[in-house]
Amino acid sequence: MTEIADLDTPCVVIDMVKVEANLQRAQADADANGYKLRPHIKTHKLPRFAQRALALGATGITVQKLGEAEVMADAGITDIFMPYNVIGAQKLKRLRALNERITFSVTADSPDTVAGYAARFAEAQKPLAVLVECDTGGGRCGVQSPAQALALARQIAMAPGLVFGGLMTYPGRGKFREADRWLGDAKALIEAAGLPVKVVTSGNSPDMWHGPDSVVTERRPGTYIYYDRMQVAFGAAKLDECALTVLTTVVSRPTPTRIVIDAGSKALSSDTGGVAGFGAVQGHEEVVIAALNEEHGIIELAEPSDWPRVGDRLQIIPNHVCVVSNLFDVVNLVGGNGEVETVPVAARGRVA
Amino acid sequence: MTEIADLDTPCVVIDMVKVEANLQRAQADADANGYKLRPHIKTHKLPRFAQRALALGATGITVQKLGEAEVMADAGITDIFMPYNVIGAQKLKRLRALNERITFSVTADSPDTVAGYAARFAEAQKPLAVLVECDTGGGRCGVQSPAQALALARQIAMAPGLVFGGLMTYPGRGKFREADRWLGDAKALIEAAGLPVKVVTSGNSPDMWHGPDSVVTERRPGTYIYYDRMQVAFGAAKLDECALTVLTTVVSRPTPTRIVIDAGSKALSSDTGGVAGFGAVQGHEEVVIAALNEEHGIIELAEPSDWPRVGDRLQIIPNHVCVVSNLFDVVNLVGGNGEVETVPVAARGRVA
Repeated sequence: MTEIADLDTPCVVIDMVKVEANLQRAQADADANGYKLRPHIKTHKLPRFAQRALALGATGITVQKLGEAEVMADAGITDIFMPYNVIGAQKLKRLRALNERITFSVTADSPDTVAGYAARFAEAQKPLAVLVECDTGGGRCGVQSPAQALALARQIAMAPGLVFGGLMTYPGRGKFREADRWLGDAKALIEAAGLPVKVVTSGNSPDMWHGPDSVVTERRPGTYIYYDRMQVAFGAAKLDECALTVLTTVVSRPTPTRIVIDAGSKALSSDTGGVAGFGAVQGHEEVVIAALNEEHGIIELAEPSDWPRVGDRLQIIPNHVCVVSNLFDVVNLVGGNGEVETVPVAARGRVA
Repeated sequence: MTEIADLDTPCVVIDMVKVEANLQRAQADADANGYKLRPHIKTHKLPRFAQRALALGATGITVQKLGEAEVMADAGITDIFMPYNVIGAQKLKRLRALNERITFSVTADSPDTVAGYAARFAEAQKPLAVLVECDTGGGRCGVQSPAQALALARQIAMAPGLVFGGLMTYPGRGKFREADRWLGDAKALIEAAGLPVKVVTSGNSPDMWHGPDSVVTERRPGTYIYYDRMQVAFGAAKLDECALTVLTTVVSRPTPTRIVIDAGSKALSSDTGGVAGFGAVQGHEEVVIAALNEEHGIIELAEPSDWPRVGDRLQIIPNHVCVVSNLFDVVNLVGGNGEVETVPVAARGRVA
């Protein structure tokens, strides 16, 4: 039996007991509050976790790249939503192939994007479902007003080969009430024009817990499967619910306060999301990584200490797990009995 | 013939004319100023670029991980330095196997690290060369004083199976004169004790250009092969010498000033190194990426503009190329005639 002590560092360690609890808690919240869960697999990129969420009651999955969708479809997942403008001949060809294999849907936020879909699907046997992406305060993609949402919904509905699938947003941090009002206004406007809005889908893990009073029919949390220091700072989880850590070795103790570990920005990423430092030591969460080079993490203790020694191992809770998963070819799943199973991160590096 | 226009986005594009010029300029500087060049391959992770630098006159290569060394040794590279404390039974076994295949050397900055090497190499046919890592102001690993350097050099020299290989530092930013004094003092002290210091090796690209008045015998620049916005900010290069860009597609123009591209933190990383923004548009270098999500880069123009349109392609000069290389399975090498060759990033993801 392989155990954590047998693993070489740096590597990713995933606590399967916490993963299961995190998946179940989210599905229970969805069931209690009457929304559908469509988990985003960009966080873990593992077919088995997508399948487990579906077994617990998820309505389908979310991906951000066609390459991720292809990996998940190959693994037998049959309902995938990709909230992205798919642009260009090569991607539209792959999109059409995916739509022929499984239930697939995408978004658009411009007439140009819709025109691209319409040209590719005009002759298709099976139409493509296209949702309108709405900028409800997040400041990323999306139409800027409910009137624009209506215009785009009409363009989709009128195009041969396309069907209008509803409204999608990635809300601004803490702006879910603003998003709700925006989406409610757009839904009313579009339905008054005779187009039913069957799906209103919203993103991100922190906003999952806001209760039942929403026009949103479906949520797309991703990070909730593992959580991380950013999610804890957002109030979405507690530190002891964080399921993914990076196992590291102390490689240097140059001074009584300085610790250097063998995980740097190529293992933890430089993401901070406004959190102090670049990761925290599990079990000593007040001890944070002060600086990262590519292959070194540098910790400065507040007081001189003999702990930890060169060769000691520390588990680091990352700031942002989604980018950490993407840096490792494999992750190590640790069961309740301590047994480790090493699995490839199947959709890692699917950049396009 | 494949050209840039045939590539799907996001992807890495490397201008081979600039690469060759960057390699040649560094080797010419080394030759003119009497130091040896030992390029760090963590930036590109490609055997062909290691081999090209060697053909131009480099004395060997530098790696940061055993996995990188194994890939390079498999590709026929025969002289590799790894400036890192190698800790733990699994890595020490791989280290010994590498040292039997090729000319290999490592560093130590603590008695514990040296003791680990000594235990593993006591019975070895071929000894391991160990350099003492010195903290000359960089604040990362390294002994804290020339007296500590002497003590560690003596421990190495006395251990069966080890040979003292010299002094190594990764200097603090802009602190090369401070590093020089430190290393000169340590060299004098160690040589006065009867141990020759044959190699004094120093890191990083910006410090490469400081001229001949140095105790340093060897330099280990990495980023100089591609350069990036951080190197330009450090004064190490000009923007038009940056050889690596990320080719992206504009996927959304939600407002007259906002541009969203299909490269986010999983393509460009969140590294800033103190530079404004997360990358600049090649040919419009005043246009920078203001914010990144995982799969979106967000640009805010100073003035409303019709340019660029949805579907247009932009080449982004990254802040930090070393972490970008590590995010892509393949890169696209573009020759002077525009022909593209796509090659795997052989040592990508070799985290341990």
